[in-house]
Amino acid sequence: MDKPYFLQLFDPQLENPILIEGLAGLGNIGMIAARHLIESTEAKVFAELYAPYFPDYVMVKKDGTCRPPRYQFYVAKTQKNHYIILTGDAQPSMEDTTAHYDLCDEILDFAEKYGSRFIVTIGAIVTSNPSNEVYIAATSQKLAQKHLNKETLVYTEGKIIGATGLLLGLAKRRGWKGICLLGATTGFGAERGVGLSVFNVLTEIIEPGTKKEVEEKT
Amino acid sequence: MDKPYFLQLFDPQLENPILIEGLAGLGNIGMIAARHLIESTEAKVFAELYAPYFPDYVMVKKDGTCRPPRYQFYVAKTQKNHYIILTGDAQPSMEDTTAHYDLCDEILDFAEKYGSRFIVTIGAIVTSNPSNEVYIAATSQKLAQKHLNKETLVYTEGKIIGATGLLLGLAKRRGWKGICLLGATTGFGAERGVGLSVFNVLTEIIEPGTKKEVEEKT
Amino acid sequence: MDKPYFLQLFDPQLENPILIEGLAGLGNIGMIAARHLIESTEAKVFAELYAPYFPDYVMVKKDGTCRPPRYQFYVAKTQKNHYIILTGDAQPSMEDTTAHYDLCDEILDFAEKYGSRFIVTIGAIVTSNPSNEVYIAATSQKLAQKHLNKETLVYTEGKIIGATGLLLGLAKRRGWKGICLLGATTGFGAERGVGLSVFNVLTEIIEPGTKKEVEEKT
Amino acid sequence: MDKPYFLQLFDPQLENPILIEGLAGLGNIGMIAARHLIESTEAKVFAELYAPYFPDYVMVKKDGTCRPPRYQFYVAKTQKNHYIILTGDAQPSMEDTTAHYDLCDEILDFAEKYGSRFIVTIGAIVTSNPSNEVYIAATSQKLAQKHLNKETLVYTEGKIIGATGLLLGLAKRRGWKGICLLGATTGFGAERGVGLSVFNVLTEIIEPGTKKEVEEKT
Repeated sequence: MDKPYFLQLFDPQLENPILIEGLAGLGNIGMIAARHLIESTEAKVFAELYAPYFPDYVMVKKDGTCRPPRYQFYVAKTQKNHYIILTGDAQPSMEDTTAHYDLCDEILDFAEKYGSRFIVTIGAIVTSNPSNEVYIAATSQKLAQKHLNKETLVYTEGKIIGATGLLLGLAKRRGWKGICLLGATTGFGAERGVGLSVFNVLTEIIEPGTKKEVEEKT
Repeated sequence: MDKPYFLQLFDPQLENPILIEGLAGLGNIGMIAARHLIESTEAKVFAELYAPYFPDYVMVKKDGTCRPPRYQFYVAKTQKNHYIILTGDAQPSMEDTTAHYDLCDEILDFAEKYGSRFIVTIGAIVTSNPSNEVYIAATSQKLAQKHLNKETLVYTEGKIIGATGLLLGLAKRRGWKGICLLGATTGFGAERGVGLSVFNVLTEIIEPGTKKEVEEKT
Repeated sequence: MDKPYFLQLFDPQLENPILIEGLAGLGNIGMIAARHLIESTEAKVFAELYAPYFPDYVMVKKDGTCRPPRYQFYVAKTQKNHYIILTGDAQPSMEDTTAHYDLCDEILDFAEKYGSRFIVTIGAIVTSNPSNEVYIAATSQKLAQKHLNKETLVYTEGKIIGATGLLLGLAKRRGWKGICLLGATTGFGAERGVGLSVFNVLTEIIEPGTKKEVEEKT
Repeated sequence: MDKPYFLQLFDPQLENPILIEGLAGLGNIGMIAARHLIESTEAKVFAELYAPYFPDYVMVKKDGTCRPPRYQFYVAKTQKNHYIILTGDAQPSMEDTTAHYDLCDEILDFAEKYGSRFIVTIGAIVTSNPSNEVYIAATSQKLAQKHLNKETLVYTEGKIIGATGLLLGLAKRRGWKGICLLGATTGFGAERGVGLSVFNVLTEIIEPGTKKEVEEKT
């Protein structure tokens, strides 16, 4: 294996699915928010992505069984939208920029096959006094403004590192639309509370009016 | 040479050979156990693997002759099983994850050509008070449980780094079965005693009932 | 994306265009000088270059919109010359030498298609007491000597690191002619003054007699 | 350029040329010895090798002209032998092992086209009390023993790092014969004296009986 490859479990029929990314990363906020979405929409895994860019170890579970690092693609259909939800337990090394670019383009190619043209990426930024605020960046100024409310702020003049930033940037270059949600964290440990806050903002954006139901569920 | 390549010395006829991996690594436990198996089964080298991922030096022997780092494949046939035994004196750099994935898949491709569908990988884990216990991980819960006895424990909730973990994980993804044996070590120096303990556990698993004979031999 | 690629915005008709490089780097002197040239010649972007060698982040602007790192090619036509001006906001990692070589050759291939056979690269060198002097290196001794005056010195017996050096070296190997202008800097922060000095030297070389007009403009 | 490539200046007719390697490295001993051989045999450059694995800078000479790092192949014919002498001013990064393997195989392919089947590589080892002794390693025990005398020792049980080791090891795997000469150095600075000692040993080996003439010349 010297290139990423997909293990397809089944082949869902989708209409303009929104691609939602929540990978392992700072405070695992993206992963936590994606997990909430997977549970609340009863999403099912339909594909796995393996890559030589992932760490060279296997992860062993409680029962002694093992598997290599991977990304997983979940599919969900609600009354409002179809979703492809991407989550995973590792990212390539920070130094290996080609790995990041290659993986992101493979992911966008894959989602494009199912008709995706809109992406939401989820990550984190470190601030000294986080108070559950969520920062928004987007492929256009209009989109960045559209979802502003008392819980959200526009993220301005910075960098968004890793898949959370690069997926959005490369999607934009392909003509997709999309937004990025960044939970504020001190940068220490996994942040379940921040992950939930970002999930709630996400829900208001992609499933407006269903927030209450989702909170009861999780 | 920008890809791994095999130097084939002869072409053995094999039936469902078990692939046994014992490479250089922590405490050299895998290499020591593989050496014991090679000696006790009178295995013969039938192929060598060279790769640009290995260190860029040659190793010089007592007589002043040199050779580049390599992996060696030995073949052995006992009354119970056919074996392909992989051993070697180097591993790719920890940072070069693509090298690890590529090498492991090349090795599995090679063994699959001879009909291998079962793998045993051998390595080590660091513990503060090792007492010759051997940890087991496997491709399925059933296999992990099958070989438990007073000398072995299930390895739970950790990572297995390098070829020892990745070969097992990638083999599983191909539908192979397999187990991983991890000798417990403090992490200082080569561990002949631990290597022998792991070899004895290995023998009980792959050649049950022949343990006594093997101990006399080594 | 595992190779660099060009996004062509329009396809200008050019005659022997001079390729001018001013990328992000030490003191951003090359980028500042290139920016002055773009403004003074009213150059237009006609192509963008994206590469997996660039950093794996997106840059977010004041309005919350984002884009991945990129190089931009501007085209300008003056009464004296046609120009392709290359500028950009990132460079590959210092360690990834293959990325540097590959990008530089891609850039030279691209400019060669438009008929370029002359290059000016712009960068910086660190000196302890910079006094707005500009150092010159070239593909031939004759060229290095040709542009010496009270503001310029020949750069001797050193190295020119990154795209500024490598583009000139690889262009020379292709049979191009070219010079390199290096502004002197202490190495701390962006150097607007030094960038302007280098721009003035550049203007004397490529647009002799138009210096006054350019100074008024900028 | 994402692969090494050769710039051929002319195409010499050679019979079983001995390939001599003396690249930049520890104490520059290989390069110094190769320089002596080039001068004493009045060798001429006939090919250059450029590679994206070399450092991403250009080297600027006294007159302000620049060129990228390169390897050079010289050709020489004496009454005794034909020679291809390889020298150069850089090596790939220590970490980039694939670069080392790829370059070495390209070099051996190139020399093999001219009929080379024998190689002499020249380098250095660090010892605490060097006294102009030269260590020898070889592709066979017979060759290592053959050139022992009061100035030389067999190099035993160690590693030979970089092109000096790897060229010999990869040549051996191709069925070539060859030896490696290692000058002893403290590891500080360029070692002209040690380089000359190694050159004298080299001369005794490849041009026996001509030592006096060469010493007068250099």
